[in-house]
Amino acid sequence: MKKHILLFLLISPLIAVAQKRPREMGIKIGVLPTGTLNAITDVAGVKVGQVTLVEGADIRTGVTAILPHDGNLFQQKVLAAMYIGNGFGKLAGYSQVEELGTIESPIVLTNTLSVPTAADAIIDWTLGQKGNEDVRSVNPIVGETNDGGLNDIRGRHVRKDHVLNALAQAETGPVAEGNVGAGTGTICFGWKGGIGTSSRKLPAKLGGYTVGVLVQTNFGGVLTINGVPVGQELGKYSFKETLDKSSDGSCMMVIATDAPLDPRNLKRLAKRVMLGMAQTGGIAANGSGDYVIAFSTANRVMHAAAEPTVSANLLHNDYISPLFLAAIESTEEAIINSLLMAKSMEGTQGHKVEELPKEQVIQIMRKYGRLKE
Amino acid sequence: MKKHILLFLLISPLIAVAQKRPREMGIKIGVLPTGTLNAITDVAGVKVGQVTLVEGADIRTGVTAILPHDGNLFQQKVLAAMYIGNGFGKLAGYSQVEELGTIESPIVLTNTLSVPTAADAIIDWTLGQKGNEDVRSVNPIVGETNDGGLNDIRGRHVRKDHVLNALAQAETGPVAEGNVGAGTGTICFGWKGGIGTSSRKLPAKLGGYTVGVLVQTNFGGVLTINGVPVGQELGKYSFKETLDKSSDGSCMMVIATDAPLDPRNLKRLAKRVMLGMAQTGGIAANGSGDYVIAFSTANRVMHAAAEPTVSANLLHNDYISPLFLAAIESTEEAIINSLLMAKSMEGTQGHKVEELPKEQVIQIMRKYGRLKE
Amino acid sequence: MKKHILLFLLISPLIAVAQKRPREMGIKIGVLPTGTLNAITDVAGVKVGQVTLVEGADIRTGVTAILPHDGNLFQQKVLAAMYIGNGFGKLAGYSQVEELGTIESPIVLTNTLSVPTAADAIIDWTLGQKGNEDVRSVNPIVGETNDGGLNDIRGRHVRKDHVLNALAQAETGPVAEGNVGAGTGTICFGWKGGIGTSSRKLPAKLGGYTVGVLVQTNFGGVLTINGVPVGQELGKYSFKETLDKSSDGSCMMVIATDAPLDPRNLKRLAKRVMLGMAQTGGIAANGSGDYVIAFSTANRVMHAAAEPTVSANLLHNDYISPLFLAAIESTEEAIINSLLMAKSMEGTQGHKVEELPKEQVIQIMRKYGRLKE
Amino acid sequence: MKKHILLFLLISPLIAVAQKRPREMGIKIGVLPTGTLNAITDVAGVKVGQVTLVEGADIRTGVTAILPHDGNLFQQKVLAAMYIGNGFGKLAGYSQVEELGTIESPIVLTNTLSVPTAADAIIDWTLGQKGNEDVRSVNPIVGETNDGGLNDIRGRHVRKDHVLNALAQAETGPVAEGNVGAGTGTICFGWKGGIGTSSRKLPAKLGGYTVGVLVQTNFGGVLTINGVPVGQELGKYSFKETLDKSSDGSCMMVIATDAPLDPRNLKRLAKRVMLGMAQTGGIAANGSGDYVIAFSTANRVMHAAAEPTVSANLLHNDYISPLFLAAIESTEEAIINSLLMAKSMEGTQGHKVEELPKEQVIQIMRKYGRLKE
Repeated sequence: MKKHILLFLLISPLIAVAQKRPREMGIKIGVLPTGTLNAITDVAGVKVGQVTLVEGADIRTGVTAILPHDGNLFQQKVLAAMYIGNGFGKLAGYSQVEELGTIESPIVLTNTLSVPTAADAIIDWTLGQKGNEDVRSVNPIVGETNDGGLNDIRGRHVRKDHVLNALAQAETGPVAEGNVGAGTGTICFGWKGGIGTSSRKLPAKLGGYTVGVLVQTNFGGVLTINGVPVGQELGKYSFKETLDKSSDGSCMMVIATDAPLDPRNLKRLAKRVMLGMAQTGGIAANGSGDYVIAFSTANRVMHAAAEPTVSANLLHNDYISPLFLAAIESTEEAIINSLLMAKSMEGTQGHKVEELPKEQVIQIMRKYGRLKE
Repeated sequence: MKKHILLFLLISPLIAVAQKRPREMGIKIGVLPTGTLNAITDVAGVKVGQVTLVEGADIRTGVTAILPHDGNLFQQKVLAAMYIGNGFGKLAGYSQVEELGTIESPIVLTNTLSVPTAADAIIDWTLGQKGNEDVRSVNPIVGETNDGGLNDIRGRHVRKDHVLNALAQAETGPVAEGNVGAGTGTICFGWKGGIGTSSRKLPAKLGGYTVGVLVQTNFGGVLTINGVPVGQELGKYSFKETLDKSSDGSCMMVIATDAPLDPRNLKRLAKRVMLGMAQTGGIAANGSGDYVIAFSTANRVMHAAAEPTVSANLLHNDYISPLFLAAIESTEEAIINSLLMAKSMEGTQGHKVEELPKEQVIQIMRKYGRLKE
Repeated sequence: MKKHILLFLLISPLIAVAQKRPREMGIKIGVLPTGTLNAITDVAGVKVGQVTLVEGADIRTGVTAILPHDGNLFQQKVLAAMYIGNGFGKLAGYSQVEELGTIESPIVLTNTLSVPTAADAIIDWTLGQKGNEDVRSVNPIVGETNDGGLNDIRGRHVRKDHVLNALAQAETGPVAEGNVGAGTGTICFGWKGGIGTSSRKLPAKLGGYTVGVLVQTNFGGVLTINGVPVGQELGKYSFKETLDKSSDGSCMMVIATDAPLDPRNLKRLAKRVMLGMAQTGGIAANGSGDYVIAFSTANRVMHAAAEPTVSANLLHNDYISPLFLAAIESTEEAIINSLLMAKSMEGTQGHKVEELPKEQVIQIMRKYGRLKE
Repeated sequence: MKKHILLFLLISPLIAVAQKRPREMGIKIGVLPTGTLNAITDVAGVKVGQVTLVEGADIRTGVTAILPHDGNLFQQKVLAAMYIGNGFGKLAGYSQVEELGTIESPIVLTNTLSVPTAADAIIDWTLGQKGNEDVRSVNPIVGETNDGGLNDIRGRHVRKDHVLNALAQAETGPVAEGNVGAGTGTICFGWKGGIGTSSRKLPAKLGGYTVGVLVQTNFGGVLTINGVPVGQELGKYSFKETLDKSSDGSCMMVIATDAPLDPRNLKRLAKRVMLGMAQTGGIAANGSGDYVIAFSTANRVMHAAAEPTVSANLLHNDYISPLFLAAIESTEEAIINSLLMAKSMEGTQGHKVEELPKEQVIQIMRKYGRLKE
């Protein structure tokens, strides 16, 4: 395992250097300003760790972990909610989050058949933390998409140590995009997908809050980039000829904010993430597992309640709409980032998936007057 | 009342003649073909009836009724489901549809404060129908948006006879759009909204089914027409300067299909309607009541069951995705139709709302290469 | 109308005097202590108003109104949630409560076909209140059960002034039970049902909070009183002989508390109300509309937010379980109260419904060792 | 591992011989007749397999597996739904069942921290079956309760081979109850809980269908046996003295039927299971994971659809109510069975949990006139 992680560590800065993000290319999505990094890590305290598994001809998979804060996540839970856009997926942890309104573990993304392994690793990690010696119940959050097109998914190559490494490596700062972590082997709109992230920082007059989104893209539909019909221009979109399965696949979406939302309003925020996904031409096809996990870093819920009641400062409903717009824009941009940061890849059974032809995309964007040059 | 209905009857064909629909102007949304009328009435048997109330300086409201079929709707129920995009609204009838999976009344749209009146009228209408002499329970479906910007909504000018007239006038064939029926006084993206409709007819290879959508538009966000940032170009969009309330308001969306979907799959279809709404730049703001009502004309459920079990032919999950795309495209186009078919209007307290400047919109569409000329 | 209200005003104290409540008879349900009045009005500030319509041979219906507090309910909303046990009903107001987490109107119960009338009356009432001159949207909460067995329900004899009278009469203090208000014509377990209420006051060590429940009982199953199989002993229960419809009908349940619960925890509380209903032998049959409306008087949400964030003191999840038990016990007792406080009644088409034979019930309770004498 | 399984094989028939089930003792719950075995296996084709792990001082756990039919479960899915009474639990597989309306794997119950292991084992089992060579996605259903009071749960002693053994051993016929399988280390109402099962066979006039329930009991409240206040009589119930945690814990409930229900009606059936749980005095406390999994054996959904539409014979809503009563009665009896079939057990850290004192319970039942002798 050391080898490929090393590989990843070597390659990853190169990616960052070598490749412009869409916004730098002139694809400017939305009307709101981004955060400093244009990443989920713009929400203070949020950390991301990724392990990329590219080995031999068959292994193209990985792990992406998101940690809501730096402390003991079990003892200091964050308020959270989930929304299921289309439930053809294996997300672990849904019902407890919905019931109690909190997340008490890291959020881990991986491939479909490795959900149990990742959940088990989160249990290891939680039980092993200082202060958790008496913990006998933990609710691991694990999302997935099916990378079986490029990855030998039946081989279940993700091991617990991969997950633990992703957790250990998690850090604030820039987040690698494209063929990394849980996005290593994913396919989106028929092109190479992957991990993408984006953020919005509301102006002070709209509350000043930050919203960040991270996505693992593996779905289909009719690709639209900032309103431009790129899928049609490239002649590749779902149902063009027949009832193909190209629209299947899934999209895992994680949204973080520092706005003081309660679980009810976090669920409303999560629902808007699907509206952002729609902007890219995604249709939440039958075979798609489209899940949104939302959390707020503003209030923590102590596992051991010192008092029966807790005082919380919460956003009034009337002030939430700008956050909805921020969620929509961040999601759209995170998905487009995942596509334009991905690289062509050959995987299991010699299956090859091309990256979006960047030059052509740029020309198409220009043709439709949507390139800021 | 006679006067304004007469007025409506006279004007409505003129509208149809005088004004091109967006598709005829060259705004061609989506990749799937429309039905013959590009209207919800392309779903065989579906009828629409509208009553428009424009009186004096203050009354700008109305009623739009959709009837799933021509028979006794209570005795022959249609399979149905609803999806709530954002529940800040007063929709009547939700829980019974969700529980039993059927609609047993017409669907009526009107203004917020007239929901009880419309529900009462539906009860009158149902109890009064031949064969319903013993009916002692009926579930009226009434949706609404708030037209209080142009209409003296507190005056509650919609009366039961207006609703009964809309039901009586309902017919198959073309559907008037813009400032008619329940869309008479609505506002959308800061411009005059109204009623819009559209449809898609799947190619035989994708199932051959028809999907039709009718919308009552009264919401906000950042207007996008077929991917083009019209709201930004026109300098009018939500939160441009401050935390305004321009994104509030609501959108009622009704989707009909002849595909043999059960209530579970109708709910999935209904969820995709919100994705279509997202394409227009709608954000489902806090103050918005965004509801989708979905029904299928393919199977009818008899009120009095002759046998304990009923045989039904139902679509397998694997074949539903093209219907999702059809729902998304129809919704987007129906909303755009409602906007481009609407006319500037002056209403209560001298408040005036402009229609979208059509010529300018066409130039913007051309500038962004999205006008098929 | 004057006549029967007068009648009601005269009779109602007599009922209170003449008839012992089950607890006074020795039927002591549960392990927790009741509040002072053993009524929903034990929750400080909650008011109840009822109008009973008994006229001629055919009219047996009415209105029961619950007001969460004495102030302007629209301007000072209460946190709230609903739970639908079985959705075969016409409850008005569900979706907005679920979305925004607040109730902004009185809660009115009446018969199935009078829901629109009651909703319209609430709109009148709200628009007419001082301070609401600019209100253009209000979400009326109206529940119902079908009293068509004794009442000429198709005649829709509830008028807006009846509803407004119920609202005007609402007061704190004891609540009349049995054949009053919205329970005037209802039937439960084959016997005369009606309005019932009960409460629990938690000991200080369990939080000291009060929970109060009010029910409108009109459902079926296999009647059980405090664990005793009264339905079987009396030889009257659902499906004894055939697939009868005796289990149909509905139960409206309103639960109030002064515990500082947020909408998520209020929904959880509401779900437990169904468990209390189950204790009486209710089965939530297909034809039943079993709805729970829950609100807390502890925190008010101002319609006009002075600040973007609101500070709230909320109960930690870990302290809620005693409230669940209180909800279950109060509901069970409220339903039993509704039955044992009801009187035999003859109504429309000469249909007569007997009250539970109190003496026999007492003997059965004694036989099974469940009478505290 | 061989040792303890051998142990189980030896002991299990002894249990069956030595101990009378409550119904044989004279505790006759409900008004409907049971199936032949009074077990979930009365639903034709349903199989149950259990592995019991009792080793040394610390291991008190196990696995209970339910297989809906004898064929390839992935290729021939059953219609299904779930209902969450209280979601403080780690159930795997929820969202896909809700979205697609089918279960495609066995249902496995185990302890909280072993859910990932069990899910992983189900993946092994499914991928390994003949005909599943191309399967790259499977949705394992795993429920749990927390047996950490008697079992060293942090040790995660359930291994994949234990799960696979439970699946391999699954058979039709009688089902062992009490301290077996996933119920080995559970605690219920402060007494030893475990696995319990029961069934109802509707008379022909009510449809003739069979309903079977299997439960894993690990929860609290105020124990009531067939209406008799056993908890109070024995002086042991939740919140008697303080805000103890004795009501926490969970209850997993699986309900099978041969009635031709679609997922919507299966969800309604599942909701009634909670009403049966309520009859035993369960309160669905904050810390409880109360989940219901419902499936019907009447219609199978082929993984590979031969045709776009499928013909299904489905029960009309009007005929479902007797099934609701059957669900309630079966659940109540299954829970009582789990308690009265359980044996006192000593486990980890010397913690000992007593079984219900059977003789005393019988006397209490007699005292309250509820023993059929």
